[in-house]
Amino acid sequence: MQRKSFEDMSCPIARSLERVGEWWSILILRDAFYGLKRFDEFEKNLGIAPNMLTRRLNALVEEGLLERRQYSERPPRFEYHLTERGRDFRPVLIALLEWGNKHFAPEGKSVILMDSETGKPACPTMVDANTGKPIAGIHVIEAGPAASESLKQRIAEKAERRAAGLAKM
Amino acid sequence: MQRKSFEDMSCPIARSLERVGEWWSILILRDAFYGLKRFDEFEKNLGIAPNMLTRRLNALVEEGLLERRQYSERPPRFEYHLTERGRDFRPVLIALLEWGNKHFAPEGKSVILMDSETGKPACPTMVDANTGKPIAGIHVIEAGPAASESLKQRIAEKAERRAAGLAKM
Repeated sequence: MQRKSFEDMSCPIARSLERVGEWWSILILRDAFYGLKRFDEFEKNLGIAPNMLTRRLNALVEEGLLERRQYSERPPRFEYHLTERGRDFRPVLIALLEWGNKHFAPEGKSVILMDSETGKPACPTMVDANTGKPIAGIHVIEAGPAASESLKQRIAEKAERRAAGLAKM
Repeated sequence: MQRKSFEDMSCPIARSLERVGEWWSILILRDAFYGLKRFDEFEKNLGIAPNMLTRRLNALVEEGLLERRQYSERPPRFEYHLTERGRDFRPVLIALLEWGNKHFAPEGKSVILMDSETGKPACPTMVDANTGKPIAGIHVIEAGPAASESLKQRIAEKAERRAAGLAKM
């Protein structure tokens, strides 16, 4: 990503974005979920320039989203496997998939998430596991124990806007 | 985003990424959910250069995620409001928030999503609304009616990898 100063990097969304680097990284992660592991598989599937792919894979390894494993000694060759951190990125991909299907597929869906046990299309929805309720207007952002002073102030301002009926989160 | 050729743009994840443009766009959307509406509010909160902010706001309006509304005639001034399409981006933000809190907040959480009715922290989880089950290994990608030939082929290859126990989605 652009390493420009995000004003308050204690925001977890900004931190997440910093780690996935750029769009190519997200598409590489998508392909890793699809079971791709080798350089040439990613290269072919993404149509990405090799030097760019090398850079993005190295960054994903450095950030702990992929793990590099040697599968051949001569010549030395490596595979890229999702780590736990990488696998935990899945809800972001599912959310992007749903949003794309809903808003940017005027000709119909090209990819569908299915429940392989029932054979029916899934309907991915973000809920609060504590209550089963969809994440919606009742769910609000609050400062956590590690919030910086500036973030606390921004969240307090947001609470005021929420009280005035302006904020949506 | 880089307008380089994503090899198969019928993928809804690639399409979604194309629409949000770049990281700044996601942070602008985040702030819009926080209730920010005016140019100078975004500028102050993000610490973003004005020309960059203008470009990102215009792109978000063009893609139908924000709507521009005039609130002053002299001088002419505008506010930016989330559209339905913009509001539907929320699960992506929540997923990024959760991932960041889990993996990139070693000093503790700085932002928490709360249930304002119970006063307890929410536990955002992606489930299949049809069954209530978490989106997990049983949920698999299949080609939809609008899949291109190349996408169908990739998904068929993925099904083979899945049968071999390699794919995770």
